Amino acid sequence: MLHFDLLSTEGHARRGRLRLNHGVVETPIFMPVGTYGTVKGVLPRDLETMGAQIILGNTFHLWMRPGLDVLGTFGGLHRFEGWQRPILTDSGGFQVWSLGKMRKISEEGVRFASPVNGDKLFLTPEVSMQVQTVLNSDIVMQFDECTPYETDGQITTEKAARASMELSLRWARRSKDEFARLENPNALFGIVQGGMFEPLREASLAALVDLDLPGYAIGGVSVGEPKEDMRRIMAHTPHRLPAHKPRYLMGVGTPEDLVEGVHHGVDLFDCVMPTRNARNGHLFTRFGELKIRNARHKADERPLDPTCACHACSHFSRAYLHHLERCGEMLAPMLASIHNLHYYLNLMKEVRAALEEGRFEAFRAQFHADRQRGID
Amino acid sequence: MLHFDLLSTEGHARRGRLRLNHGVVETPIFMPVGTYGTVKGVLPRDLETMGAQIILGNTFHLWMRPGLDVLGTFGGLHRFEGWQRPILTDSGGFQVWSLGKMRKISEEGVRFASPVNGDKLFLTPEVSMQVQTVLNSDIVMQFDECTPYETDGQITTEKAARASMELSLRWARRSKDEFARLENPNALFGIVQGGMFEPLREASLAALVDLDLPGYAIGGVSVGEPKEDMRRIMAHTPHRLPAHKPRYLMGVGTPEDLVEGVHHGVDLFDCVMPTRNARNGHLFTRFGELKIRNARHKADERPLDPTCACHACSHFSRAYLHHLERCGEMLAPMLASIHNLHYYLNLMKEVRAALEEGRFEAFRAQFHADRQRGID
Repeated sequence: MLHFDLLSTEGHARRGRLRLNHGVVETPIFMPVGTYGTVKGVLPRDLETMGAQIILGNTFHLWMRPGLDVLGTFGGLHRFEGWQRPILTDSGGFQVWSLGKMRKISEEGVRFASPVNGDKLFLTPEVSMQVQTVLNSDIVMQFDECTPYETDGQITTEKAARASMELSLRWARRSKDEFARLENPNALFGIVQGGMFEPLREASLAALVDLDLPGYAIGGVSVGEPKEDMRRIMAHTPHRLPAHKPRYLMGVGTPEDLVEGVHHGVDLFDCVMPTRNARNGHLFTRFGELKIRNARHKADERPLDPTCACHACSHFSRAYLHHLERCGEMLAPMLASIHNLHYYLNLMKEVRAALEEGRFEAFRAQFHADRQRGID
Repeated sequence: MLHFDLLSTEGHARRGRLRLNHGVVETPIFMPVGTYGTVKGVLPRDLETMGAQIILGNTFHLWMRPGLDVLGTFGGLHRFEGWQRPILTDSGGFQVWSLGKMRKISEEGVRFASPVNGDKLFLTPEVSMQVQTVLNSDIVMQFDECTPYETDGQITTEKAARASMELSLRWARRSKDEFARLENPNALFGIVQGGMFEPLREASLAALVDLDLPGYAIGGVSVGEPKEDMRRIMAHTPHRLPAHKPRYLMGVGTPEDLVEGVHHGVDLFDCVMPTRNARNGHLFTRFGELKIRNARHKADERPLDPTCACHACSHFSRAYLHHLERCGEMLAPMLASIHNLHYYLNLMKEVRAALEEGRFEAFRAQFHADRQRGID
C-alpha cells in the first residue's frame, strides 16, 4: 500500500505526504540508515523522539545476519528491531556490487560468497523480492546493478553505462513480476540508472515509468563521482519523474545536498553520513561542521549548537563531549549520533515548514549563508 | 552535609535514608560506577529512569582527564556530567595502587607517572582532598592504601597488612585535617583496612571511629582474595561499625554478594560488574546468568528476563540482543548495560521493600533459591 499526496510545490520543490502500511511519512524527509536492524548507537525510542518517520534496513546485511529464519519468526523487521513506523529496504544490489572482485554478475543475477561464513550465494531479482517480502518493509526497492563511476581508475563509458542500465531495467521487470507473484502488500520502487549520462537517465526513466511503479528512486549517485557530476544528475533527473509519485535520491548526502535535492524535486533521502560522522566526532550544526576532538573545545561550557533542541545540546557541553571523545567513551558516539540525526531530521522539518509557507527559496538562501558562516 | 536515619533493622540488615547535598539516597543501595564522568554506555536520563540515586566517579581518572581546570570551570562533576543527584568519589588510592610497578609509595604519598601523558605526579591525602573538593562530590573518600591480598604470588603477611593499615590510618587523619581546612561542605568517609585479618580490621575500625567521621567504608576486599575470605571479612566487619552511620562495602560485587552484604549490615555498594559484564554479553536475571552470545538465543522471541521491567526487556527479544551482539552493534552493550544496572537497582529496591516489611530473611532465602534455579 502506498498513497502519495502532493500538498504544495515551489518550483520543483514539493511538500508531500506518503501513506504506507506502517504509517504516514511527511515529505521531504531524511531516512536514518539502520543497516543491521539498528540505527547504530541510537535507541528506537530516541529516533521517535527526534522525529524519525521512516528508517532504512539493508536487505543484504539482514539476509546474512540474522537471516530469514529469524526474521520470518518475527514476521519481519519491524517487530524484530522494535520499530513500528515505516521501513524502506534496499535491494541488496549495492552491497553485492560493493563486494568487488568477490562477486560475479550475469544476466540471471549476482553470485558471491557470504562475507559472514563463505557460503556460495546467488542474489537475483526474485531472491531480493523474496527476502524483502520476509522483511515486510513498507518500501521495497527493485534489484538493480549500481553503475560504477569508475572501475580501476577507468571512468565508465556511455556504452558500458547503457548496458548496465538496460540490465537494471530487465531486473526491474523481473522484480515487479516476482513482487506481484509473492502478493507483497507493500510498495515497490523502481531505480533510475544511467550513470553520468543524461540521455541514459532519460531512457531509464521512461522505461521505468512504463512499468507504472508506485515510486521511483535515482540510484548510481554518490558512488565516487565528482560533486559537480552528482549535482548535474540531481538537477537533471528528479523533476522528470512523475509528479504524483514519490522520488527518492539514494545515498545522498550532505546537508547542502539535501536542500539542493529538495530544490530539484526530491522527496526522500538516506545517508550514513550523520551517524558515521558522529562516530568520528564530526558534528553538524546550523553554522557548519564542528570537530569535537579539537582541543579548543576542552573547557567550552556551551552546547554543540545553541540553536539545537536535541538531547545532547540541551543536556551537555562541548567540553563534556570533547572529554568523552578523548576518553573513547561509548557515550560520545551515542550523543553525537543523536545530535547529527536530530540535525538532519530537524533540517527537513524546517524545509517542510518553509514549503508549507511558500518560502522555500528564501529558506534555501539563508541555509547556505548560515552553513558557510562557520561555527565559533 | 550528611544525615543518616536508620529506619528499621532486621538482624544486622538495615533500611536507612541518607541525606546529602544533592539529594536523598534510600539504603541499602547499589551505586553505578561512572569512572570518567560517565556510566559507560548509559545516558544520565536512563540512570534516573531506572532509579539510580547516587553514582560514583573515579578521582584518579577525572584528575587525569578532563583535569581540574575543566572540572573547576563547571563547579564540579555534577554539572560537567549532567547528573544532578548525589555522587560519591573514591580517593584515587586504589587506582594509583593498581599502577603496580609504575608507582612508589612513601609515608608522604604515592609518586607515579601519569598514564595519559607521562607527567610525574604525587598523590597525597591532601591532594586527594583537594581534587575531591573540586569535584564537589557528596561523599568524599579518605586517601588510603589498598592492602593487596597477594604480591607476586606471596599472600600478604599479617605484619605487612598491619603496616599498610596503619599507614592508611595516618592518611585518614591527614585526609580529615585537609578536608576541614578546605571547608569542604560534603561528607568524608573513612576506610577500614586490615587485609584478611580480623584483629587488624578491628584495630582499624576502632581508630577510625575515634576520628568520628560521618560514614565508613570497608576497603581491601574484592582484590583477588578467595570468595571465602571476602565473605569472612564481610561477615566480620560491617556490623561492628557505628549503627547510626552509613556503611559502604567498596567494589562488591555479585548479586549474591549484595544480598549477603545487606544481611551483614552494609548500606552502600558499588561495582563495575553490571556494566562490564554487560559489555561482554553477560546478563543478570532473577534466575541466574544468561550469555546472550550463545547460539541458543538466535530465534528466541522472549525478553531476557520475563520478570524484568527495564527498557531492554520491555522492548526487545533475546534474538534481537543476540543479533546485535553477534554483529558488534553498539546497541548491544547499550541495552545490556541498561538491563544489568536495572537488575542491580531493582534488586536493592526489592531488598528495601523486604526490610520495610520485616521479611528480609525470607526474601534472602527466595533470592538464593531463584538465582540457583538457572534461567531456561
